[in-house]
Amino acid sequence: MSSKDVGFITMGDARSDGEVQPIGVGMLGYAFMGKAHSNAYKTLAYMTWPPPLMPRLVAIAGRDEEGVAEAARRYGFEGYVTDWKALVADERVQLFDNSGPNNLHAEPTIAAAEAGKHVICEKPLGRDADESHETWQRVAATGVKHMCAFNYRFVPAVRLARQLIEAGELGEIQHFRGSYLQEWGTTEGNIWRFDKALAGSGALGDLGAHVIDLARYLVGEIEAVSAMTATFQPGREVDDAVESVVAFENGAVGTIEASRFCQGRKNHFAWEINGSKGSLAFDLERINELEHSEGNAGFRTVLVSEADHPFWEHWWPQGHMIGWEHTFVHELHHLLTAIRDDGDIAPHGATLEDGYRAAEVCDAMLRSAQGGGRETVSYR
Amino acid sequence: MSSKDVGFITMGDARSDGEVQPIGVGMLGYAFMGKAHSNAYKTLAYMTWPPPLMPRLVAIAGRDEEGVAEAARRYGFEGYVTDWKALVADERVQLFDNSGPNNLHAEPTIAAAEAGKHVICEKPLGRDADESHETWQRVAATGVKHMCAFNYRFVPAVRLARQLIEAGELGEIQHFRGSYLQEWGTTEGNIWRFDKALAGSGALGDLGAHVIDLARYLVGEIEAVSAMTATFQPGREVDDAVESVVAFENGAVGTIEASRFCQGRKNHFAWEINGSKGSLAFDLERINELEHSEGNAGFRTVLVSEADHPFWEHWWPQGHMIGWEHTFVHELHHLLTAIRDDGDIAPHGATLEDGYRAAEVCDAMLRSAQGGGRETVSYR
Amino acid sequence: MSSKDVGFITMGDARSDGEVQPIGVGMLGYAFMGKAHSNAYKTLAYMTWPPPLMPRLVAIAGRDEEGVAEAARRYGFEGYVTDWKALVADERVQLFDNSGPNNLHAEPTIAAAEAGKHVICEKPLGRDADESHETWQRVAATGVKHMCAFNYRFVPAVRLARQLIEAGELGEIQHFRGSYLQEWGTTEGNIWRFDKALAGSGALGDLGAHVIDLARYLVGEIEAVSAMTATFQPGREVDDAVESVVAFENGAVGTIEASRFCQGRKNHFAWEINGSKGSLAFDLERINELEHSEGNAGFRTVLVSEADHPFWEHWWPQGHMIGWEHTFVHELHHLLTAIRDDGDIAPHGATLEDGYRAAEVCDAMLRSAQGGGRETVSYR
Amino acid sequence: MSSKDVGFITMGDARSDGEVQPIGVGMLGYAFMGKAHSNAYKTLAYMTWPPPLMPRLVAIAGRDEEGVAEAARRYGFEGYVTDWKALVADERVQLFDNSGPNNLHAEPTIAAAEAGKHVICEKPLGRDADESHETWQRVAATGVKHMCAFNYRFVPAVRLARQLIEAGELGEIQHFRGSYLQEWGTTEGNIWRFDKALAGSGALGDLGAHVIDLARYLVGEIEAVSAMTATFQPGREVDDAVESVVAFENGAVGTIEASRFCQGRKNHFAWEINGSKGSLAFDLERINELEHSEGNAGFRTVLVSEADHPFWEHWWPQGHMIGWEHTFVHELHHLLTAIRDDGDIAPHGATLEDGYRAAEVCDAMLRSAQGGGRETVSYR
Repeated sequence: MSSKDVGFITMGDARSDGEVQPIGVGMLGYAFMGKAHSNAYKTLAYMTWPPPLMPRLVAIAGRDEEGVAEAARRYGFEGYVTDWKALVADERVQLFDNSGPNNLHAEPTIAAAEAGKHVICEKPLGRDADESHETWQRVAATGVKHMCAFNYRFVPAVRLARQLIEAGELGEIQHFRGSYLQEWGTTEGNIWRFDKALAGSGALGDLGAHVIDLARYLVGEIEAVSAMTATFQPGREVDDAVESVVAFENGAVGTIEASRFCQGRKNHFAWEINGSKGSLAFDLERINELEHSEGNAGFRTVLVSEADHPFWEHWWPQGHMIGWEHTFVHELHHLLTAIRDDGDIAPHGATLEDGYRAAEVCDAMLRSAQGGGRETVSYR
Repeated sequence: MSSKDVGFITMGDARSDGEVQPIGVGMLGYAFMGKAHSNAYKTLAYMTWPPPLMPRLVAIAGRDEEGVAEAARRYGFEGYVTDWKALVADERVQLFDNSGPNNLHAEPTIAAAEAGKHVICEKPLGRDADESHETWQRVAATGVKHMCAFNYRFVPAVRLARQLIEAGELGEIQHFRGSYLQEWGTTEGNIWRFDKALAGSGALGDLGAHVIDLARYLVGEIEAVSAMTATFQPGREVDDAVESVVAFENGAVGTIEASRFCQGRKNHFAWEINGSKGSLAFDLERINELEHSEGNAGFRTVLVSEADHPFWEHWWPQGHMIGWEHTFVHELHHLLTAIRDDGDIAPHGATLEDGYRAAEVCDAMLRSAQGGGRETVSYR
Repeated sequence: MSSKDVGFITMGDARSDGEVQPIGVGMLGYAFMGKAHSNAYKTLAYMTWPPPLMPRLVAIAGRDEEGVAEAARRYGFEGYVTDWKALVADERVQLFDNSGPNNLHAEPTIAAAEAGKHVICEKPLGRDADESHETWQRVAATGVKHMCAFNYRFVPAVRLARQLIEAGELGEIQHFRGSYLQEWGTTEGNIWRFDKALAGSGALGDLGAHVIDLARYLVGEIEAVSAMTATFQPGREVDDAVESVVAFENGAVGTIEASRFCQGRKNHFAWEINGSKGSLAFDLERINELEHSEGNAGFRTVLVSEADHPFWEHWWPQGHMIGWEHTFVHELHHLLTAIRDDGDIAPHGATLEDGYRAAEVCDAMLRSAQGGGRETVSYR
Repeated sequence: MSSKDVGFITMGDARSDGEVQPIGVGMLGYAFMGKAHSNAYKTLAYMTWPPPLMPRLVAIAGRDEEGVAEAARRYGFEGYVTDWKALVADERVQLFDNSGPNNLHAEPTIAAAEAGKHVICEKPLGRDADESHETWQRVAATGVKHMCAFNYRFVPAVRLARQLIEAGELGEIQHFRGSYLQEWGTTEGNIWRFDKALAGSGALGDLGAHVIDLARYLVGEIEAVSAMTATFQPGREVDDAVESVVAFENGAVGTIEASRFCQGRKNHFAWEINGSKGSLAFDLERINELEHSEGNAGFRTVLVSEADHPFWEHWWPQGHMIGWEHTFVHELHHLLTAIRDDGDIAPHGATLEDGYRAAEVCDAMLRSAQGGGRETVSYR
């Protein structure tokens, strides 16, 4: 008996109209971030149904042919290249996804944009403010959509925090204290994150940049910083930890901290915001929870998983928690929507300008750490 | 310039050998569980790389043609059918995935197995122990692989708990207390979960069965129960809550509870196990955490996310938490591995026998609730 | 220079009027509970200023002369006796405080009341319902004030819970689940708590009675129970654990559990109440906190330490937490107020009737555990 | 029948030998701190039995006669004075307890010491480093015992942390982050804590000094600071918040923060210490808990309430939590022991030198906040 005999309808028949438009994706990098972005393209295709655009995974680039071929096979790319310039030259690629290491952010991202492709680039945008500024400026000049992959803006609890703050639920904001703490700093070996030439900085650009971006997203621009850095591991070039006090343009003050030397803290990106009408607190290790004190009533654990919570139209009944990787689903959904509609990445997505601004704050922290003085953050 | 000119390698070229064998999947149901299972097949294809078998989504069945067609399109099934018998008849289908409502568990699952297809069936296996027993017996007689989708066995923290218990870390077990609490019991409307003919029971089969299965998986067989049930909503046929004390064969005693009338509890499946050498505690709302008291040292929060934790070889660096939906990735990976290797589903996966045994405990609870006496659980 | 020269005013001069009336206290027992009660009399004298009556610690009774003499000296009693009958006979004693072991509850308490003294007796009131009933009846017949020392009614968070429930904040109550878990059950030695003749029961009367009393205080009368007990330690006469389901007169159902075999649980008396409009949860190990979900909003941690919280008029600025021992301060303050004003102990204080009623529920649990059937609780 | 007839033994008879030596206490101040210290003297008399010395509450000083007379009556002082100089002149006073406001710390404390009385003075020792230095120097010159009332050194969890650190359990320390957050900063009215002339500083001296003291007690001397302050309330003279990064002599870096503008934070003095072998974390709102990650094992909640935990020989069975006020019991017990034995206050008690050193760090923070530069802390 053939399948037709019992009423099998093939989607070839069924899919004849109402199709979602495709978008060709070329990706640079297939390690941690490449895996996270690939998963997100594949997941958003059905979880955010109908997706704004249907990702077509055209090709992935990496220097090691065996590795990149395996990644292409694994994630379902149509092919691979060993030179990212091939992605830039490929007419099928409309979106260039830069998931490579920090030293490969600027040149490929600029080249892709100048070839007319929309770009998303992992954070930190550049290894310093200069490189970040040039990347932003040259990409922005092309008119393509551009995004810096500060994915924690796309945590449902973070977006909910932003909504509450915008709605005035916190009143005037007086404090932000954010720390991003991990524990693997004693890892031996020559990984690129410890190489100043490749990474630019250590915990600061890797972890601190996330804290700075959320501080800007949730509270506002940072006006001044005073910082110290520490390198605990002998022989290491980059900072293992950065400690900073910060003053915001709106009068709030607080602390920003990042460290890879905090035993027991696996991925502890925690922040608290205090305003005249209430407080919010968050910890990435409990990614689905937001603590909210309405006025001085005490902190309520909001399980951010209800139908009307940010991004939850895509997921499950309440209380069926989602994972870290889905921040990328939300992020890329936002990007594809902006591409489809010629809409804005900002304010909820980070643009390359946001990437640059975070870098400017990072540089101010390094200057303060080196010189000892309070540094004003000024944007070019 | 063509892509070839810059070194584009197509996977057609690259994929010539080392391919993973495919397995044709036919799915019944496209609502909550259908979505969860579909997502898992698609995700495991690259996240558990290389997958044991490569799922080929042949067809999905549902009575509403518009709905099932949309689901097929969304999840990428090759086609759809409006009569599940077409799946059973389809030679391309090697694995029958029953994600339908409780009243559609027995007949299609039996038919599929008798047609030589491996089967996975959502829980509760049947609407009562009789139906569950027959389903198990008839499926087992066919020799196919069979699984009852008690997905919480595949939470990394639950598997870790099992490992610790098997290793003797808890010593002799004295207590199990488990409750599965939700809050939506006042929902109006004629959903199938409130219809005795379709669902069999209320909170008991829906939520309590999960508690019973984990009690059996972690502690052992239940020997006797004393229970009460309550129906709070006027006019409802099924139980809104069940409360039970339980005695295990190994001498442990405890409580099992399920309710849909617990305001503020979104998906609170929490259990605690006390043994002579230590205790473990878990809450599904914090799915990535396991609380462990070694001896009487006090409870340590284990963030179950490290490279050597169960299932974490598939995921991310530590502290980058996964979501509820990935329990299905692990479950189906387990099933596909057993099919590929002609291996065992038990003890880590639940078989239909486990589905039947949970039903036998549920029935004993209902008998106790009705008759008032302590009921012995006896398996046929 | 004498102190007078620089303006020293002695309280002899200053204290001439407005004095608080004294009340003579005679105490039986100087171990754990004797220490707790003694501390409370001394503390309430100034912390609840002005106290309703000023405790005068007349005498303390104990069989071991060296021990009781030391206790008298330590706590500032005016004297001691080695036979409790001396307290009953002592005209200076107006309040008889029975902090002795369970087997010394009935006779001395009855004798003291029949000698016209107000009485407070530690819980459980008697070793079974019969003894408890007789104690209550004979004491009540005398017309003195009588209290059963269920001190957890006097935890600020518990009182606040009662206030919220009385104000209708939880709506109709559907569930109570309470457990009192400790870990010292493997303790060797012949302590009186393991001796059935002295203690009456094990974890049930020691810990379970507290759970039962709060269930009654917060939810209402218990109508029926089904229970199991376990004795894990070889050779022990009394229960090490009790597990029960309970049905309340108002239709709520739930669980009550007590165990001394829960590693890592130091003094974990935790309960949760779910109602149609919200939920409350409490854990004695975090004695100053009450978890409150208003509707389904999620649980807010109320730090019960604000000026308008129960009993906090006596203490410190908010957030300066009080300890377990101060439950006795509140309890005895309540008792002294009732004595001074000829007011009622109930409903916030437990009377000997409450002590009896808890014993009736305990007995029903034991009958159910032995006979296997559901037991109705009926009060005489 | 007289009490003698039934064997009443008066303590006059029983107390003839083995008596604890008395020590006369004169106290300045009867508000928040006066209440806390009075309670501690009265409680330690029997809870730390036998106390090192038996406090005799000779007299209490305050300017408002009605208020101080009431306090004397309430707490059982033998008399009162309206001029603290009378306490200094009183020969019965051997220990001068300065619980007054900041502007009354220096002169009375110096005068009492120069009159040969041991002294304990509330924190901050002086309104600035100069005043604190002079107070310390002049008191130290007299040879009396002197203590600065940094009571949080006497939290059992804090002492346990010190023990663990001293035993090398944390290895080399890399980080300290401490914040003391309260929410009452918008309080109107002219309370002395907002008056620069009386208080010296705002949140810094009130709350920040506690953080600084514990940082020094647990980690070591602070070498450099960079700070910002904020005054949110219009017209207020003192800081409402201080934010600082700190570098320790041993190479650790971190943050210190204090604020009165954190809605929902009642008395949130929280700190975390990260070392090469593990981490510790504490929150005063859960005063009986210490979080400890041994290596990277994850944080274990130690309920600091066991028989071998610091100070617990004085209290209750495990899990029966103590309150904030008992930090003073431990502190004064420590002081009386040092007086009795001519022992050392340091290292576990804070001396006036510690009070001065905290003030030096506070002043460095203020200089940094004003000047913008990193400030080295140098002790005179």
